[in-house]
Amino acid sequence: MLLKNGDTVVFFGDSITDYYRWQVPHLDFWGFGYYMVTSSLLKASYPNMDLTFYNRGHAGDCTINLLNRVEEDCISLKPNLVVILAGVNDSIKRYNGNDVYVSPEQFKENYSGILSKIKKSLPDAKIILMEPFALPNEARGIRDDLNEKILKVREIAREFAVDELIPLDGIMNAAFAEKDDEKYWATDGVHPTHAGNALIVKHLYKAITGEEVIPCL
Amino acid sequence: MLLKNGDTVVFFGDSITDYYRWQVPHLDFWGFGYYMVTSSLLKASYPNMDLTFYNRGHAGDCTINLLNRVEEDCISLKPNLVVILAGVNDSIKRYNGNDVYVSPEQFKENYSGILSKIKKSLPDAKIILMEPFALPNEARGIRDDLNEKILKVREIAREFAVDELIPLDGIMNAAFAEKDDEKYWATDGVHPTHAGNALIVKHLYKAITGEEVIPCL
Amino acid sequence: MLLKNGDTVVFFGDSITDYYRWQVPHLDFWGFGYYMVTSSLLKASYPNMDLTFYNRGHAGDCTINLLNRVEEDCISLKPNLVVILAGVNDSIKRYNGNDVYVSPEQFKENYSGILSKIKKSLPDAKIILMEPFALPNEARGIRDDLNEKILKVREIAREFAVDELIPLDGIMNAAFAEKDDEKYWATDGVHPTHAGNALIVKHLYKAITGEEVIPCL
Amino acid sequence: MLLKNGDTVVFFGDSITDYYRWQVPHLDFWGFGYYMVTSSLLKASYPNMDLTFYNRGHAGDCTINLLNRVEEDCISLKPNLVVILAGVNDSIKRYNGNDVYVSPEQFKENYSGILSKIKKSLPDAKIILMEPFALPNEARGIRDDLNEKILKVREIAREFAVDELIPLDGIMNAAFAEKDDEKYWATDGVHPTHAGNALIVKHLYKAITGEEVIPCL
Amino acid sequence: MLLKNGDTVVFFGDSITDYYRWQVPHLDFWGFGYYMVTSSLLKASYPNMDLTFYNRGHAGDCTINLLNRVEEDCISLKPNLVVILAGVNDSIKRYNGNDVYVSPEQFKENYSGILSKIKKSLPDAKIILMEPFALPNEARGIRDDLNEKILKVREIAREFAVDELIPLDGIMNAAFAEKDDEKYWATDGVHPTHAGNALIVKHLYKAITGEEVIPCL
Amino acid sequence: MLLKNGDTVVFFGDSITDYYRWQVPHLDFWGFGYYMVTSSLLKASYPNMDLTFYNRGHAGDCTINLLNRVEEDCISLKPNLVVILAGVNDSIKRYNGNDVYVSPEQFKENYSGILSKIKKSLPDAKIILMEPFALPNEARGIRDDLNEKILKVREIAREFAVDELIPLDGIMNAAFAEKDDEKYWATDGVHPTHAGNALIVKHLYKAITGEEVIPCL
Amino acid sequence: MLLKNGDTVVFFGDSITDYYRWQVPHLDFWGFGYYMVTSSLLKASYPNMDLTFYNRGHAGDCTINLLNRVEEDCISLKPNLVVILAGVNDSIKRYNGNDVYVSPEQFKENYSGILSKIKKSLPDAKIILMEPFALPNEARGIRDDLNEKILKVREIAREFAVDELIPLDGIMNAAFAEKDDEKYWATDGVHPTHAGNALIVKHLYKAITGEEVIPCL
Amino acid sequence: MLLKNGDTVVFFGDSITDYYRWQVPHLDFWGFGYYMVTSSLLKASYPNMDLTFYNRGHAGDCTINLLNRVEEDCISLKPNLVVILAGVNDSIKRYNGNDVYVSPEQFKENYSGILSKIKKSLPDAKIILMEPFALPNEARGIRDDLNEKILKVREIAREFAVDELIPLDGIMNAAFAEKDDEKYWATDGVHPTHAGNALIVKHLYKAITGEEVIPCL
Repeated sequence: MLLKNGDTVVFFGDSITDYYRWQVPHLDFWGFGYYMVTSSLLKASYPNMDLTFYNRGHAGDCTINLLNRVEEDCISLKPNLVVILAGVNDSIKRYNGNDVYVSPEQFKENYSGILSKIKKSLPDAKIILMEPFALPNEARGIRDDLNEKILKVREIAREFAVDELIPLDGIMNAAFAEKDDEKYWATDGVHPTHAGNALIVKHLYKAITGEEVIPCL
Repeated sequence: MLLKNGDTVVFFGDSITDYYRWQVPHLDFWGFGYYMVTSSLLKASYPNMDLTFYNRGHAGDCTINLLNRVEEDCISLKPNLVVILAGVNDSIKRYNGNDVYVSPEQFKENYSGILSKIKKSLPDAKIILMEPFALPNEARGIRDDLNEKILKVREIAREFAVDELIPLDGIMNAAFAEKDDEKYWATDGVHPTHAGNALIVKHLYKAITGEEVIPCL
Repeated sequence: MLLKNGDTVVFFGDSITDYYRWQVPHLDFWGFGYYMVTSSLLKASYPNMDLTFYNRGHAGDCTINLLNRVEEDCISLKPNLVVILAGVNDSIKRYNGNDVYVSPEQFKENYSGILSKIKKSLPDAKIILMEPFALPNEARGIRDDLNEKILKVREIAREFAVDELIPLDGIMNAAFAEKDDEKYWATDGVHPTHAGNALIVKHLYKAITGEEVIPCL
Repeated sequence: MLLKNGDTVVFFGDSITDYYRWQVPHLDFWGFGYYMVTSSLLKASYPNMDLTFYNRGHAGDCTINLLNRVEEDCISLKPNLVVILAGVNDSIKRYNGNDVYVSPEQFKENYSGILSKIKKSLPDAKIILMEPFALPNEARGIRDDLNEKILKVREIAREFAVDELIPLDGIMNAAFAEKDDEKYWATDGVHPTHAGNALIVKHLYKAITGEEVIPCL
Repeated sequence: MLLKNGDTVVFFGDSITDYYRWQVPHLDFWGFGYYMVTSSLLKASYPNMDLTFYNRGHAGDCTINLLNRVEEDCISLKPNLVVILAGVNDSIKRYNGNDVYVSPEQFKENYSGILSKIKKSLPDAKIILMEPFALPNEARGIRDDLNEKILKVREIAREFAVDELIPLDGIMNAAFAEKDDEKYWATDGVHPTHAGNALIVKHLYKAITGEEVIPCL
Repeated sequence: MLLKNGDTVVFFGDSITDYYRWQVPHLDFWGFGYYMVTSSLLKASYPNMDLTFYNRGHAGDCTINLLNRVEEDCISLKPNLVVILAGVNDSIKRYNGNDVYVSPEQFKENYSGILSKIKKSLPDAKIILMEPFALPNEARGIRDDLNEKILKVREIAREFAVDELIPLDGIMNAAFAEKDDEKYWATDGVHPTHAGNALIVKHLYKAITGEEVIPCL
Repeated sequence: MLLKNGDTVVFFGDSITDYYRWQVPHLDFWGFGYYMVTSSLLKASYPNMDLTFYNRGHAGDCTINLLNRVEEDCISLKPNLVVILAGVNDSIKRYNGNDVYVSPEQFKENYSGILSKIKKSLPDAKIILMEPFALPNEARGIRDDLNEKILKVREIAREFAVDELIPLDGIMNAAFAEKDDEKYWATDGVHPTHAGNALIVKHLYKAITGEEVIPCL
Repeated sequence: MLLKNGDTVVFFGDSITDYYRWQVPHLDFWGFGYYMVTSSLLKASYPNMDLTFYNRGHAGDCTINLLNRVEEDCISLKPNLVVILAGVNDSIKRYNGNDVYVSPEQFKENYSGILSKIKKSLPDAKIILMEPFALPNEARGIRDDLNEKILKVREIAREFAVDELIPLDGIMNAAFAEKDDEKYWATDGVHPTHAGNALIVKHLYKAITGEEVIPCL
C-alpha cells in the first residue's frame, strides 16, 4: 500500500486526467475520467484514512505547461504520492494545426524538470508514471512522434527510480487486440472512453493499494 | 452473474443516475455518477460479452415522469436487466418551491406502473431496485416525505419479487456514521459525491456479478 | 474482535432485547431473543474468555426509561461493550392507546443522555448501536414516527463516534423483500420472530467478533 | 446438506427440546432451547427453502410417552428429517420421587418402537439421534441408570442405520473439562444452559447443513 | 502445537497403549497400537525436533498398577507431555475371573494419585487424558462398571485442569454407529483393531499438533 | 483416488510388508509395519467404502518366492490394487550366509513374471511399485547388489506402465541426510523403524488417495 | 489451457526464438532462449500430453524470410498452436549496414501474409503474437523504425483475432524501469539476456497454460 | 527462502552444470542447462535482490578436478549458497576409454575435500547437494560404479549437514517410469535433455525459494 493515513495525492497531467473537470466545477473539479474513478473508489474503501486527492489535469497541457505549473499545482500541495500521465499533447500539438514541435530532447528536459522539482522539494514523495498512449487508427498522425515521447518517459522512470511505471501503451493496445473496436477503448485513439478509463483504474488501483481487487485484463 | 453475453442493461432513474450526462453529450451521455463507474468497470472486465448499457436517468424526474417514459426509454431498448434508483424527487419537488405533493399511494401507483409495464413486456428481464436515500443534515426537509417513499419501494420490491433490493438508505447512513462528514458522501444530502457513488458501485457491482471484487464497506 | 478476556457486555434496550426474560426468571433472565442467541453462541465459542453478559432489556421501555436506569442497569455493571437497540417504543406508545408523544428532539435528548452518561463514566467502553426497525404492514401506524427516531439514532451514532451502527431497518426490510412474508421475520412488524432474531444475531455476531462465521443474508 | 426445498423437520424429545415452549405459547411454541436456536438460524440462512420446523418436545416425557405420541406428533407431520433427543427422563423418573423404573430392555423397546413406526410410515425420512447426557455433579443420582440408556441409544442408532449419531454425552463432558463450571453448561446437570444449548446447536447445525459454519468446540 | 524441540512424551496406560510391545522387544518396545502410529507419524513429520517417546503401557494394568509405577515409568523420564489412557482394566478385572472390584472412589483415588504425583514433580508437564471406552456387544459385561470409571476420569480432567480430554467412548461408539460392525473397530469391544487405533491416532495427533492433518471421522 | 467402493488391495512383499505378522496372528495377521499403518488409516478414513486389505508380505521372501505364490496369495484374492515392495532379500540372501545369488537378469525375470501374471489375470488392476531401499551403514554389504535390483524395478515399472513408482531409495536416503541418525529410520539399514515406516506411509497414502493429507518430508 | 494431448507447437521467429540453435545442433536445435525454457518447462510439467515443439526461429530473419518459409517451416508441421515473435530484424537491417528498408506497409503485407497462410491451411490453429521490442540505449538506432513495426503487429493481432497479443515492448521496458540496468535484461537492447528471456517465459507460460505458476513481474 | 539481498550463488559441477557454456562465451558463459534456467528465473523473479550467479560447471570434470579448482572457482567468489551436482564423470571416465578408476574411498576424499574447504573458508555458506544420476539404458555401463558414488554423496550430505540433498537419481528414474522414453529426459542417460533439466529446475527452484511455484512432478 503506497498510502498512509492523512496522505495527499496529486494526479498531474493533461486532458485525460482533467477529463472535463472545468466543465463541471460544481462537482468539485474532479472531472470524470480515471482520476475520478480511482480516487472515489479509494475514498469509499478507506473513508477513515483522511486521504486528499487533487486533480491537476489541464486539458491541452504539454510537458512545458506542466513544468511551468508543477510548483503551484503539485509541489505546493505537498503530495505524498504523485501520479503523472503526460506527454501525448506534445505529440498532438504538432499536427492539429498548432504546429508546435517538441523535440524528444526538449520533451525530456521538460518532463525531467517536473520530476527534478518534485524530488528536490519532496524527496520522500512516491511517484507513479504512466506511459502516454494512443490507439492506432484515430491517432495515427501522432504515432511516430508519440513513440519518441514514450521512450523518453521510460528513460525518466529509470533515471528518477520512480516507484512504478505502468506501460499503458502496451496495455491499451493489447486490450484493443482482445476487443477489436477502437471506439470501445478510446474514441479518438487518445482520450480513453469510460471503458478505457476503467482499464487504467484497474492497473492504477493495484499499483497504489498493492491488491488486485478488480482483476486486470 | 446476472448478465450473459449480448445483454442490454438499462439504468433507469433521476439525476443520481443521470449525473450531468446532458451536460457532456460528447461523452456519449454516460454522465459521471454510479452509472458510469459501474458500467465502465463491467465493460473493462468483460470486453467480449458485448454488453450494452443505457443511462436513462433524467435529472429532476419523479416517478410519474419515469412512468411516462418507461416504454420509450426502457422497454423499447429490450433490456435484460433493469436497475432502478428513483423516488427522491417525488419528495424534493414538494419542498423546493415546486410544491408538488405526491402522496404515498400515488407514488406507489407510479412506481408499480413502471414495473408492471416492464414485467408485461419483458417478463424475463431481471430487476434490481435501490432504495432512494438521503443523508440527514442537508436533506432534512424531505426526510419525512422520503421515508414514505422508501416504504413504498420496499413494498414494490416484494410485490414484484425483484431480483435484489439494495437498502441504500441504511448503507449510506451507516457509512456516514463511520465517517462523520456528510459532504464526504453527498454534498446536499441527496446527490452522492464521487465517494458516495463509489459506495453504490461496490454494492451494485456485487449484486450484478455475484462477486465482491471491491470489498463493500 | 471487540472483546478480550474478562470482558462484560451489557445489552441495553426494550422488549426486543428483553424478549420475555421476566417471564422465565428461572432461566437466569436471558429471555429468548437475539440477546440470548448471541451471548450463548459467544459463550459456547469462547468458554475460557470469562465473558459476562447482561440482558438489560425492559419490555415497554422508551428512551426516557433507559435514560433513567442507565446508571443502575448499565454503568454500574462496568461493561466493556454496550449494545443498544432502542427507540421503537417511543413510537409505539404514541399510537397504542398510551398516547405519549416523544418529539424527535426529546428522543434525541434522551438517547444522547444515555450515551453521554456511558461515555463519561466508561470512556473506554465500546459501543454498538442498532437502528430500531419496523416492517411495513403490521407496524404501519408507527412508521412516520419511527422514521424520525431512526434519523436521530444515526445522528447520535455520528456524534458519539460509536464503534458500529448496524442499519437494521434496511437489513430487515431487504430480508423481507427476499422472503415476502412479514410474519416470517416479525409477526407484528416490530418484534422479530426467531428467524428475525437470527438475522440480527448474524450481523451482531460479526460486528462483535469481526468474523462472518454465519454468512449474513 | 440433509434438507431440500419444502422440507419439514420435527424435533422430537423431552424438556430439553421443549424448553418451556408451553410457557410461551404466544411465541408459536418454539421454546427457547437448542430447537429454537437451530431452527431460527436455519430459517435466517435459507429463507427461500420453505422449511417447516416443529418442536415436539414435551417436558417430562419418557420414551414411553414419545412412543405413544409419535404418530400424532411426528409421523402425521410427514417430516423429511426427524431429530430425536430423548431418554434422560427415563432415568430421572426413577429417582425424583416418581419411582418409575424403566429397564434397559423396556427403554430399548420404547425407543426402537419410535424408530420402527417412523421408518415404516416414512421410509425416506432422514434421522439424527443425539445421545442423552448428564453432567456429573448435579445429576449424579441418575448416572448409572442413564449410562444404560445411552448404551441403548447407540444400539438403536446402529440397528436403524440412522444418518447421524451425535455423541452428546462425551461432547458435553469434554466441554465441562475445558471450562470447569458445571453451571456454565447445565445448571442441574441435565438441562443445558444457553451456553450448553449453543454447543448442541453447533454440532446439530453442522450435522444438518454439512458445513461447520460456527466452529465446534 | 503442544510439543517443542527436545521434548519427551510418555504414553502411560494399559494393554491398549502397550499393544504387545513385550511380545516384540526387538522392535524397541513400541508395540503396534495407537502409540506406535502416533509417535511414528510425529517422528517422520518432525525428524529434527529431537522428540523422545516412551510407551509405558502395561497389558493388564489397573490404575493401582499405574499409580505404583508412575514414578519409575513416567516421572523419572521427565516427560513434557503425558498421554494417559487408562481405566478399562479396573472394570475388566472384576468380571474376568479375577474378581477384583475397584470401587469408583478407589478408582478416583488411584487415578488422581497418578496426576497428583505428576503435577507435583513436573508442574509444567502438559497432560492429555483419553476416556476409557468399550463397544457394547463384546464388552457388555463391564459396561456398568466402566461407566463409573469414565465418570471419574471426567472429574479428574476437570480437577487437574488437563490440557485436553478426548471423549473416546463417544467417538468410538459414534464410529460404530456409522459403520455397524463391532469387529471393524474393536474385536473384543475393548481392544481397538488397527482401524480403531487409527481413529484414536487421528484425534490424538490433532490434539498434540493442533492441526487436523488427517480429517477426523 | 485409486480406490472405489468395495475394492480389494493386496500388499505383496517381504518382511518389510510382513513386519512380524506371523508373530501376532491373533491380530489378524496385519503385522505392524507400513502395511498396518496405511491400511488402518484408510479404514478409519473410509469406513463405508468396504475396503478389504491383505498383507501378503512374507519375511525372507525373494522375488522367486513371490513369483511362486503370486497366484495363490495375490491373484486369487482378485485385488483392484496391488502394492509391491520387493527385492531387497534377493540381495541379502547372497551375503547373509545363504549364499544365494540372484543375477539381475534372473531378478528381472522373477519380478516381471509377477507382473505378467497379475496383468494377464487382472488386466484392470492398478499397480504401485516401490523401490527396494537400504541405508548405507548397516546394509553396506548388499549395496552393490541392491543397486542392480533397483535398476530392474525401474525397468519393470516402465515396461508394465504401472500407475506409480515410488522412488523409496532416494526418499529414505534424503530423509537420512536431513536427520543424520540411521537408526532413526532403519535400524539395520533395511528394515524401517516405525519412523521409517511412517515415511513410507506418507508417500503411499498420497499415491493411493491423491491427497497429501500428511505432508511428506 | 491452450494445449491438448498430442498437440504440436511451432515457435516461429528470428534470432530471439532461434537463440543459437544452429550453433548447438547436437542439442536437437532447441537453442537456449525463451523457446527452450518455455517448451522444456511444459515438457516437464506434462510428460504424458505428448506435446511436440518446434523451434523455427532463424537468426537474422525478417518478415519476408518468415513469409517465404512459413509453409515449409510452420504449416507443413501442422501445428495446433503457433507462437510468433518477429519484426525486429526488419528494423535492424535498415541500419546495420545492410541498408534494407522495409516500409510499414511492406512489413504488414509480409506479416499478414504469414497469418493468412496459416489461417487458410490451419483454420483451427491457435495463435499467440508477441510484440517485437527493444530497450532504449543499445538499440536506440532502430527505435523509430521499430515503433512502426510494433504498430503493425498490433493491427494484425486485431485483424486476425489472434488468441493473445503479449505487449512485450511495454513489459520489457517496465522491467527495465524497475531494475535500471539494461544489460540485465538485454545486452544489446534487442536480444534478451537469460533474465529477459525468463520474463518472456513467465508471460508466455501463463498465456499458454492459463495459470500464473511463476508470478509475473 | 535461502537467499537474501546481495547474495552470490555458485553452481559447481561438471558438464550438466556447464552445459556448453564454453561454446557460447558471447552469452556470458551461462551455458543452457539447469543452471541457466534456474538462475534466469530467479533473476526475473527478484530483479532488485542483486543476486549474482556463477556457473562453475566444467565439462568432463571429476571430483578431483573440482577439488583442485574449488578455491579459485568457488570459494574466491565468496558465495552465500553453493549448489553442487557432481560425480557422474568419476564413473564415466572409467569406461569411456580414459580408463581412470576412482575408488569410492578416493571419490569421497575428493568430494569431502570440496566441502571441507568451503566450510572452512565460508562457514555460513548454505549448501545444496544433488545426487548424480543416470538413466538405465544409455548409461548402463556406468551404473554400478555410479551407485557407489551416489552412496558417497549421501554420506557426505549427512556428515556435512548440508541444507538440502535432492535425490535426483530417484526423481529422474521415477519421471522415466511415468514417461517411458529415455530420450525424453536424458539422451545419453546422463546428460539431461531440456525436459530433464526443467525437472531439476523445479526441484532446485523449490529448494532455494521454499515455494513450489512450478508443481514438481
